[in-house]
Amino acid sequence: MAKQKKQPRPKAETPKGFRDYFGAEVSERREMLDAIAGVYHAYGFDALETSAVETVEALGKFLPDVDRPNDGVFAWQENDDKDAGDWLALRYDLTAPLARVYAQFRNDLPTPYRRYAMGPVWRNEKPGPGRFRQFYQCDADTVGAPNVAADAEICSMLSDTLETVGIPRGDYIVRVNNRKVLNGVMEVAGVLDPSDPDKFIHERGVVLRAIDKLDRLGPDGVRALLGEGRKDESGDFTKGAGLSAEQGEIVMGFMAAKRESGAATVERLHELVTGSVVGVDGVNELETIAELMAAQGYGSDRVEIDPSVVRGLGYYTGPVFEAELTFEIKDEKGRPRQFGSVAGGGRYDDLVKRFTGQAVPATGISIGVDRLLAALHAKGRLSSAVHGPVVVTVMDKDRMADYQAMVSELRNAGIRAEVYLGNPKNFGNQLKYADKRASPVAVIQGGDEQERGVVQIKDLILGAKIAESASHEEWKSQPAQTEVARGALVAEVRRILAGAGA
Amino acid sequence: MAKQKKQPRPKAETPKGFRDYFGAEVSERREMLDAIAGVYHAYGFDALETSAVETVEALGKFLPDVDRPNDGVFAWQENDDKDAGDWLALRYDLTAPLARVYAQFRNDLPTPYRRYAMGPVWRNEKPGPGRFRQFYQCDADTVGAPNVAADAEICSMLSDTLETVGIPRGDYIVRVNNRKVLNGVMEVAGVLDPSDPDKFIHERGVVLRAIDKLDRLGPDGVRALLGEGRKDESGDFTKGAGLSAEQGEIVMGFMAAKRESGAATVERLHELVTGSVVGVDGVNELETIAELMAAQGYGSDRVEIDPSVVRGLGYYTGPVFEAELTFEIKDEKGRPRQFGSVAGGGRYDDLVKRFTGQAVPATGISIGVDRLLAALHAKGRLSSAVHGPVVVTVMDKDRMADYQAMVSELRNAGIRAEVYLGNPKNFGNQLKYADKRASPVAVIQGGDEQERGVVQIKDLILGAKIAESASHEEWKSQPAQTEVARGALVAEVRRILAGAGA
Repeated sequence: MAKQKKQPRPKAETPKGFRDYFGAEVSERREMLDAIAGVYHAYGFDALETSAVETVEALGKFLPDVDRPNDGVFAWQENDDKDAGDWLALRYDLTAPLARVYAQFRNDLPTPYRRYAMGPVWRNEKPGPGRFRQFYQCDADTVGAPNVAADAEICSMLSDTLETVGIPRGDYIVRVNNRKVLNGVMEVAGVLDPSDPDKFIHERGVVLRAIDKLDRLGPDGVRALLGEGRKDESGDFTKGAGLSAEQGEIVMGFMAAKRESGAATVERLHELVTGSVVGVDGVNELETIAELMAAQGYGSDRVEIDPSVVRGLGYYTGPVFEAELTFEIKDEKGRPRQFGSVAGGGRYDDLVKRFTGQAVPATGISIGVDRLLAALHAKGRLSSAVHGPVVVTVMDKDRMADYQAMVSELRNAGIRAEVYLGNPKNFGNQLKYADKRASPVAVIQGGDEQERGVVQIKDLILGAKIAESASHEEWKSQPAQTEVARGALVAEVRRILAGAGA
Repeated sequence: MAKQKKQPRPKAETPKGFRDYFGAEVSERREMLDAIAGVYHAYGFDALETSAVETVEALGKFLPDVDRPNDGVFAWQENDDKDAGDWLALRYDLTAPLARVYAQFRNDLPTPYRRYAMGPVWRNEKPGPGRFRQFYQCDADTVGAPNVAADAEICSMLSDTLETVGIPRGDYIVRVNNRKVLNGVMEVAGVLDPSDPDKFIHERGVVLRAIDKLDRLGPDGVRALLGEGRKDESGDFTKGAGLSAEQGEIVMGFMAAKRESGAATVERLHELVTGSVVGVDGVNELETIAELMAAQGYGSDRVEIDPSVVRGLGYYTGPVFEAELTFEIKDEKGRPRQFGSVAGGGRYDDLVKRFTGQAVPATGISIGVDRLLAALHAKGRLSSAVHGPVVVTVMDKDRMADYQAMVSELRNAGIRAEVYLGNPKNFGNQLKYADKRASPVAVIQGGDEQERGVVQIKDLILGAKIAESASHEEWKSQPAQTEVARGALVAEVRRILAGAGA
């Protein structure tokens, strides 16, 4: 009860780069996360929910993107009683906490450990349009399984997940590549010497960054970066890897190695990595994945080997996966474009080595839930025009119990319903409220109706349609309003909702 | 690909006061939150998910507990390009963000605005046993409805919610009190002067803090704090409100005003507040709530007026609610005790006044989801012994596709199943893994079984039972292992799971 000093009014705003989610935005995402969790669970993955806060020490420098500054996290220092305490930070992904958990509980957890996690992560980055500093991730990873059967499982699970959330077969493709094949190609091109892994390490870094830009710069831009370098539109020059044209073409050939069938692609890749142990190993892994997929009935209409998948090749150490939606949507300017990637992942070694000194392999996938939701909206598979609750209006505020009884009846019949709780004096405000709530039906009972044992049922969807197109005469005849016996309330509302597809 | 300096290994630990949630802990909470959201939604409440991060300015000093230091939040300063930026903080509850959202979007939101929110909140407090710095809240609030019909709705919704998540009628009670009645009592006792609200403000603060300690100190302790003061066991003296014995008894009489029936309680309260306008108003509100509840069939076995509900009376401004579980559980020492409160709330004015200058009333409830889960566990209504997935073992690592086909079949039949993905060399390790996974069934097919077109099905639950009690002879006869035709795999697994209640 301390006295409060007069202060200027605070601004009612989210911090820059943060946003709120309302109503259907929340429910739709929740339903999608629950559906995804259902598939993950059926595959034997266990839920894990770590705290949002980790010590900076435990988070480490695990960001998948090499170019990202390390200070891209929200961090603060603990205030202990006397001394300055640990630095804490909000998690920036769900992989770093998995590494910490597996290191902390490795004696209690099963090995292999299949876990899924879904929740917000935070990035302390400059916000931009459509780019937020808090967003959802939805991950599944298998820790401690070195065999590519674990990778294949991730691919089939990803395919099942997409179909479960409403992307039909044919509208997506899970594409698989392998970092080891690229390493084999680099060996053949002469920028990787298995007997001296540190040699050419700078060149390989430039190669990795160059191929990662294939989508953005196209083959010629990548070719330039593999060679002497590239001048961009602003005139800035980026130094290249310094590969000869011949060397460059070997790398380019890798990305263009996709053939009509998986077998033909594998054959082509074998040609490209001839003589490289790691390269052959990588191609064999891709072949095994393709075989496992085929044996389980996942044909090339769902999962395919595609060496042009280069995103993540710098970060991952073995197989790399990407799920793309293949249907077209219209961009801001109305031009058709492919929807693109909604999930990505791959195999990464040494998940917990920085904690324990012990190498533990892991493979996993991260689904972009918000992009998937956007895709379903773009395809019209999620209707944003979800109906609101039935609104029971209040004609006589002393008869609130009667109105409450009506909403109880409706709810007991499984119909979302509410009584108007604002000031009931102005009836027009009640209908405006129902409108703002996107209510399909308003229920009205004044003293007269009560005496006669009836209620008025207003079909607001039909009413809105009539308001758009009807003549004044039609409007006055009020076809959108029906009087029914009080006992027929639920049945009549149900009839209208069935017609509205609600 | 920067070189990494040799660093000491980081500790794999959560920060102090934080914890991880595994498997069923996550799924059970998720199911409960979904069930609660279902009830809230049916009542016309809309989901709202705000960001975890708010500006410190927007969060303000909204903590319900007067004694809590204002620095109980995790906060840090934004690093803008040049200047030090805004102070940001993790939300400490879901009410402060609601206030910010309503102030920010009040022209777009319906009025009244019913919203629910569920998610973690963070408190920068000294962690203790069972006391964490991140925990879930699950709130529903109605903003902009001054009528107590909104409070009554919250009470019936709370009652429905408890029954929906598995607390049967009779095992809980929603108790309702009213801050206005206490104010009336204070007026009668002479520590509130309606014509000079600031007078006795210090005394009333002490009274509020005293009655809030009724549970802990008992009537005599509160009586002492209402009077001269109280010396606790350590010898420390807390100065009291300085009320005379007669004044003190009026306040004590308020908390003891509960009678056999709601009507009798209301009558007694009317006696206590005779002459106080606000007090009579408060009793009338309680009477209206009781009438609305009764009209909807919520009898005193579900919702009752109880003036001994004093928690929150300092914070709230009108009706106050608390849901208690009335069944007994055993405490750590095996003594029976009531489970106690699982939800609380009430009416608070001026939700957004600090942002807009405009007073907006609100009423709401917060459910302690983790306590509710603990209650269901204590009553044995949630089994912690949830079965894990069926494990298909790997006898021949070159036949992985066959094993994957088995898990696919099982999953398509709705049975959670996984193939063993560790090193298959040591079969004992595979069974140990299945054990750690709490698998109900292991499936085995070696080369011999494959040739004969059969699989071995190991009933691990029966096996564990036999291992506990069986003789060596019984053990050797392996009644827990059956051989069935490969085509009968799903049927046989289903038969065993049905027997295990899985």
